[in-house]
Amino acid sequence: MTSAVLALTMGDPAGIGPELTLRAWQALRANQHAPPFVFIGDCDLLATTAAHLGFDIPVRVIDRPIDAPAVFASGLPVLHQPLAKPAEAGRLDPANAKAVLLSIETAVALTQAGEAAAVVTNPINKAALYEAGFSFPGHTEYLGHLAGLSQPTVMMLACDALRVVPVTLHVSLQEAIAQLDGKTLAHACRVTHAYLRDHMGIAQPRLAVSGLNPHAGEQGAMGREEIDVIAPTLKALRAEGLDLRGPLPADTMFHARARQSYDAALCMTHDQALIPIKTLAFDEGVNITMGLPFVRTSPDHGTALDIAGQGIARPDSLLAALRMAGRLSASGTVHD
Amino acid sequence: MTSAVLALTMGDPAGIGPELTLRAWQALRANQHAPPFVFIGDCDLLATTAAHLGFDIPVRVIDRPIDAPAVFASGLPVLHQPLAKPAEAGRLDPANAKAVLLSIETAVALTQAGEAAAVVTNPINKAALYEAGFSFPGHTEYLGHLAGLSQPTVMMLACDALRVVPVTLHVSLQEAIAQLDGKTLAHACRVTHAYLRDHMGIAQPRLAVSGLNPHAGEQGAMGREEIDVIAPTLKALRAEGLDLRGPLPADTMFHARARQSYDAALCMTHDQALIPIKTLAFDEGVNITMGLPFVRTSPDHGTALDIAGQGIARPDSLLAALRMAGRLSASGTVHD
Repeated sequence: MTSAVLALTMGDPAGIGPELTLRAWQALRANQHAPPFVFIGDCDLLATTAAHLGFDIPVRVIDRPIDAPAVFASGLPVLHQPLAKPAEAGRLDPANAKAVLLSIETAVALTQAGEAAAVVTNPINKAALYEAGFSFPGHTEYLGHLAGLSQPTVMMLACDALRVVPVTLHVSLQEAIAQLDGKTLAHACRVTHAYLRDHMGIAQPRLAVSGLNPHAGEQGAMGREEIDVIAPTLKALRAEGLDLRGPLPADTMFHARARQSYDAALCMTHDQALIPIKTLAFDEGVNITMGLPFVRTSPDHGTALDIAGQGIARPDSLLAALRMAGRLSASGTVHD
Repeated sequence: MTSAVLALTMGDPAGIGPELTLRAWQALRANQHAPPFVFIGDCDLLATTAAHLGFDIPVRVIDRPIDAPAVFASGLPVLHQPLAKPAEAGRLDPANAKAVLLSIETAVALTQAGEAAAVVTNPINKAALYEAGFSFPGHTEYLGHLAGLSQPTVMMLACDALRVVPVTLHVSLQEAIAQLDGKTLAHACRVTHAYLRDHMGIAQPRLAVSGLNPHAGEQGAMGREEIDVIAPTLKALRAEGLDLRGPLPADTMFHARARQSYDAALCMTHDQALIPIKTLAFDEGVNITMGLPFVRTSPDHGTALDIAGQGIARPDSLLAALRMAGRLSASGTVHD
């Protein structure tokens, strides 16, 4: 039997990760249905943050994730990995970059070994890591590297009302237009289809695919990417057995009735995907990394250095990420 | 005193305009607070459509808009302008193009003469008009021409929860990037500011302006339009006294808390503006044309030829357009 314990990374110790971890434990400790998690990082960081915020939270250092369920109701389980220097909320310190990365590496290793069920990551700050020699474009690419992936991962954002998959992501809009090709789109569609089927219990996933241009180009009147790239790609994917609609006008894809007609929406640009989900569920969105050989979720916010340590950051998205990781890891085996 | 009667154009007689007009009258006839409207078009078109759908709606031909209030509770007031040929629902007929245009011209003339309070337009089909020699890019440009405008109009979409202004509109995404310049953005901001102040009773309008790129470019990491175009334009407009925030990441502008911080959101692309408003209010959005020397609203849908004549089209958006026109025309004088 596989572990049901979630491996929660430390994230940047100067960000809101530590306080969100404490709040998440408070919310989940008494919940029999939520999977327990183990925090992989510095136990003193959590204890100090708890004391600073006036939280009465016992921190329990354990040796292995399998020990977490027994202690979870009475204390926050930690696999202790010390920081190089005590963290100061809101102030990045490259001296702790190695510990940030080690937490991620440990979470991945434990999950791949079957000792943890899934990886849930607290936010990191790339600038602090780059100063310490980190050379990946981001968190997710680093996970892909650790997993030895040859194909890019695909990001899904999910809330109760909607799942979206941005096909292009953190590049300029001009570059997004240039990047959009049949190969990228087909990869995103196939990975999404497989993930919905294998992890979300949807036997026949229905995908809706947006156009790039307003009104999906109106038969070429406002741009040709729909005709030249999107429609031919969808046609080929349908021949593989995928259930796809599109290219659809993006503006009419996201109202309540439209959302009933698909299981996930693939969007050509960052804003096409992120605007509707953040409009509908600003605090509860979860980032799911598809295409890894293990389940990984994360909150859809950053380190929020400007408010770190004040106890005002909302744990909703981390809680949603933990709950989602529990559901995803319980529902199937990853086919990679 | 200015008239409180709204001039409602016929729109394409083969579309859903006639049936929506009938349904709108049913909804508004008993409402003392809603302004009466007069339909400018063929009285037989309405009578035939009513009979076909089984609606018991008396059509009352009147001579001038001022006669509408007296008859509105008991019948639908029509300024009769005959079609060249009886319309068939769902089938465009260029023979009726002249009547479609005459209805618009009459509505504008009556409103400019003070005989009507505002123009509310039913949807037209450009293809049918082009065949008959119409040479404007669309409905709104035609209205601008009739009003003798030298500056382009600016479109706002509004619902109870949100007002959005797309700065670029019905062009390919590639072309939108090329069109976005300081002059276009500044014009949209100034026109929106003046409209909120003069027609919506907002003494100090607060505008929120999106970035073009994901995360508003992240200080140039993902595109430079924010740095090169948007920020300098906003700076110059602030010096004119406009209250503007931005460039803001578009994805975090539209959730409930964010919407409290501004009166209108200016968006760089069609989808940035249309996705949030159609996600929040698919049926009740109203199109408002700003920059005309009179009030004009319209439903934010088209002629819907595929369902015309079936009686299933929802009148929500036309009703919202009529109510909005009543409020806008009551609240101030147009400064042009």
